[in-house]
Amino acid sequence: MTAEGHPRVIETDFPVRYAETDAMGVVHHATYLVYFEEGRSQYMRDIGIDYADIEASGYQLPVSEIGARFASGASYGQRVRIRTWVGENRSRRLTFNYEVLLPGSDDVLVSGFTRHIWTDAQGNVTRSPAAWNAILKG
Amino acid sequence: MTAEGHPRVIETDFPVRYAETDAMGVVHHATYLVYFEEGRSQYMRDIGIDYADIEASGYQLPVSEIGARFASGASYGQRVRIRTWVGENRSRRLTFNYEVLLPGSDDVLVSGFTRHIWTDAQGNVTRSPAAWNAILKG
Amino acid sequence: MTAEGHPRVIETDFPVRYAETDAMGVVHHATYLVYFEEGRSQYMRDIGIDYADIEASGYQLPVSEIGARFASGASYGQRVRIRTWVGENRSRRLTFNYEVLLPGSDDVLVSGFTRHIWTDAQGNVTRSPAAWNAILKG
Amino acid sequence: MTAEGHPRVIETDFPVRYAETDAMGVVHHATYLVYFEEGRSQYMRDIGIDYADIEASGYQLPVSEIGARFASGASYGQRVRIRTWVGENRSRRLTFNYEVLLPGSDDVLVSGFTRHIWTDAQGNVTRSPAAWNAILKG
Repeated sequence: MTAEGHPRVIETDFPVRYAETDAMGVVHHATYLVYFEEGRSQYMRDIGIDYADIEASGYQLPVSEIGARFASGASYGQRVRIRTWVGENRSRRLTFNYEVLLPGSDDVLVSGFTRHIWTDAQGNVTRSPAAWNAILKG
Repeated sequence: MTAEGHPRVIETDFPVRYAETDAMGVVHHATYLVYFEEGRSQYMRDIGIDYADIEASGYQLPVSEIGARFASGASYGQRVRIRTWVGENRSRRLTFNYEVLLPGSDDVLVSGFTRHIWTDAQGNVTRSPAAWNAILKG
Repeated sequence: MTAEGHPRVIETDFPVRYAETDAMGVVHHATYLVYFEEGRSQYMRDIGIDYADIEASGYQLPVSEIGARFASGASYGQRVRIRTWVGENRSRRLTFNYEVLLPGSDDVLVSGFTRHIWTDAQGNVTRSPAAWNAILKG
Repeated sequence: MTAEGHPRVIETDFPVRYAETDAMGVVHHATYLVYFEEGRSQYMRDIGIDYADIEASGYQLPVSEIGARFASGASYGQRVRIRTWVGENRSRRLTFNYEVLLPGSDDVLVSGFTRHIWTDAQGNVTRSPAAWNAILKG
């Protein structure tokens, strides 16, 4: 479940925000899920999908499961880099994997995944829409 | 702009969450706007309005202006108390005032206001709906 | 990994905050980690530990791993109830389990766990402090 | 209090995050304070100050007052641009002004300010440190 050797890994990086830190002086663990989401958004944008377009086309991709491991923490004053790739793409669900690093280093601070299900606008589970799926398959 | 002498002041209190602190060890300043919102929600509930009902009836009360002064900060391990009262209630806008204290103390940590405009579901400014206004007037 | 039959399950409940919702109209998935944290804080308070005291005694309990499954979402206007219990208590790590429900219902919206390691104030892994451990063992 | 004509206005822009939206479908108002903070951080970085360095040198710049006006909201799928400039620089306090726009437009969605006081690491108010002040004066 590492990025290495994966055919399409998208990276994005941005500064840690002060509001994202907590009293331990490092980024609060829940924030990494927001970083994952931003990695996923960038992944979508890079392959030509804006998630807003998915919603506009009558579909949603809510999160059904998450997992993350925390080896080390980022601090205010640092940038973080998010590596995102698709781990699994089935007819009704889609899994993204993530690694968070400091730019210029190969040490993974946090790794994790988010699993999503395809639903219609009413929230009923549906098959992955062919148009979006073709783009995701790359 | 203090709560004293005001005919209807609603209080609610809850523990500071760890995620709400920042690297200075105290609650991040943006969090107090969320505390204000929770004070406002409690105010609404206490007078018999759930903001979800306002939205369900086709109206919205978006925030048009905010202001706050920070005298001192709350920490994890403390509870905060939010005092909320209506400062101004005009045909198209509504202002709530707030004070944040530690329970058992009269020292105001943070004070502020949020100003709201009445809009329909499409976001067009509208007059305050009579039904809600009657309840707000008390 | 359900609460049922567990010797000590602590519950706390509070209203969903508007800021915690997202454009899907339900609570954003990252927020549930903050709810878990609030469940854990209440657990600690109920057994006589304030996490602030743990930090004051020179220890920390950073999160090393998390996992969660999302069956359904809570909305603004609802209260959420968090059930928290200790799943595993080893010499160097501690796992809390969580369920999020709507009060008055047994349907679990979200379930999950957070795994923690004991460290000193410098962040070095250490054995669980005897004093805290005795209280956690109950 | 607009950016126009101001000698040093720093801009930064980034995508709206899904977690930052609320059930109205737009960015939650408290998030703009985090955007302001990110504008201020970029301002500092651009003139050669990292706020982490200020803290490391024994000073803090806590927020003492904020104000903001909301004309319109940004949505997921859009980028926001933050314009930041120093509005007032006195011996014991410092005011930053902000405008939030969509890149490519001159319509200001949100404008506001944050006022800060200089304190030492213990939180006692102090005069602005000469070294930092010289850089801020430009």
